[in-house]
Amino acid sequence: MTGTPLTRSEAKDLTRRRLIRAALSILDEEGEAGLSTVKVAKAAGIAQSSFYVHFKDMQELLRVLAEEGGERLRGSMREARRRAREHPGDLDLHRETFRIPLESICRHPELLRIQIRARHDPSSSLRDFAVETAAAYREHHAADLAALGYTADNERDRRRLEMIADGINAATNALAMGHLEGRYPDLDEAADILTALSRGALRLLRATSNKPVSEPPGQP
Amino acid sequence: MTGTPLTRSEAKDLTRRRLIRAALSILDEEGEAGLSTVKVAKAAGIAQSSFYVHFKDMQELLRVLAEEGGERLRGSMREARRRAREHPGDLDLHRETFRIPLESICRHPELLRIQIRARHDPSSSLRDFAVETAAAYREHHAADLAALGYTADNERDRRRLEMIADGINAATNALAMGHLEGRYPDLDEAADILTALSRGALRLLRATSNKPVSEPPGQP
Repeated sequence: MTGTPLTRSEAKDLTRRRLIRAALSILDEEGEAGLSTVKVAKAAGIAQSSFYVHFKDMQELLRVLAEEGGERLRGSMREARRRAREHPGDLDLHRETFRIPLESICRHPELLRIQIRARHDPSSSLRDFAVETAAAYREHHAADLAALGYTADNERDRRRLEMIADGINAATNALAMGHLEGRYPDLDEAADILTALSRGALRLLRATSNKPVSEPPGQP
Repeated sequence: MTGTPLTRSEAKDLTRRRLIRAALSILDEEGEAGLSTVKVAKAAGIAQSSFYVHFKDMQELLRVLAEEGGERLRGSMREARRRAREHPGDLDLHRETFRIPLESICRHPELLRIQIRARHDPSSSLRDFAVETAAAYREHHAADLAALGYTADNERDRRRLEMIADGINAATNALAMGHLEGRYPDLDEAADILTALSRGALRLLRATSNKPVSEPPGQP
């Protein structure tokens, strides 16, 4: 910290960050039911009326919060998949591509819960955002499968990669929720199951495509 | 139809069935937003006040509706898995075990949407029901995998079967939603992806278990 005073724009940005952090910590501790502009503003140390200088309403704050977290997570997942791709024999790196989303969901489960509800609620103001978010996870994952060498030359091939990505992403969410409910205490076990589901689907593509692909690592 | 008048209890039952059918048809046409006791009672041809003779509130009607549909669907799925188990080489029968839930979801998607939202909403009055429903799908599926010969002798084995069932069920819901959104026009393609996901995970079990299992059918 230096003694340099903040510019007006820096101060505004800082307050905005404080509001986002305060909302995330209330979500983690009390769930969405605990969220109110009064509470979030108080936890961020500002007057409630100032909340609206930064966000139109609580839904907008939630959207920004989920958006930032989602972008960071998708970035880490793509990076992990790139590393696994470059070391096709390394099972640990392959498992890591599934551990990363599992751990991220379990750190802030409310964010996923809110998005899943919005995704399936035509009346939610977060619906479009949730649909776009699910599409981003799916399309990035499908692009990474294509980068592994799986053919994406025609509509049908591209659709199959998307379905695999879609299915694996849904399974990842389900296993993370099972961990939070105490059913699957070991996230490495869950990551192994996701690896196996994914390998099975990729084997289907290999069986019906002529393009050579690098073999994913074998199971122990 | 005979001219025999209905007993009081038969008449009550008939009205109850009419209310359930009316609610389902409103759900299908207008979504949950269109549901009101006034509308459902009108569509069933009874006075609105009589609604409460049959159901405590709309949530109870929804629970009964989802419960009946879920029990029927789980029954058909177990029956299809039994048939596939008895003809281990028959790919069509194997695909059928996934086509059945896909088609059922697509017939009345609102029922799944309501349950998914409730499952991830701690404040929903349908939460417990949605959690129990998800557990029923998971446990029946895991039991059917065990019946295929996959070992379920210890905690870890049983947990792995549950995780596979959980992941496949979540993937099934995701692919059905993708079909409804127009992304996966062909349900047979979706069923093939689910078959492949499932086979991959079962291969993991085979690799780490000594018990003999009947080989699931090969992909074309």
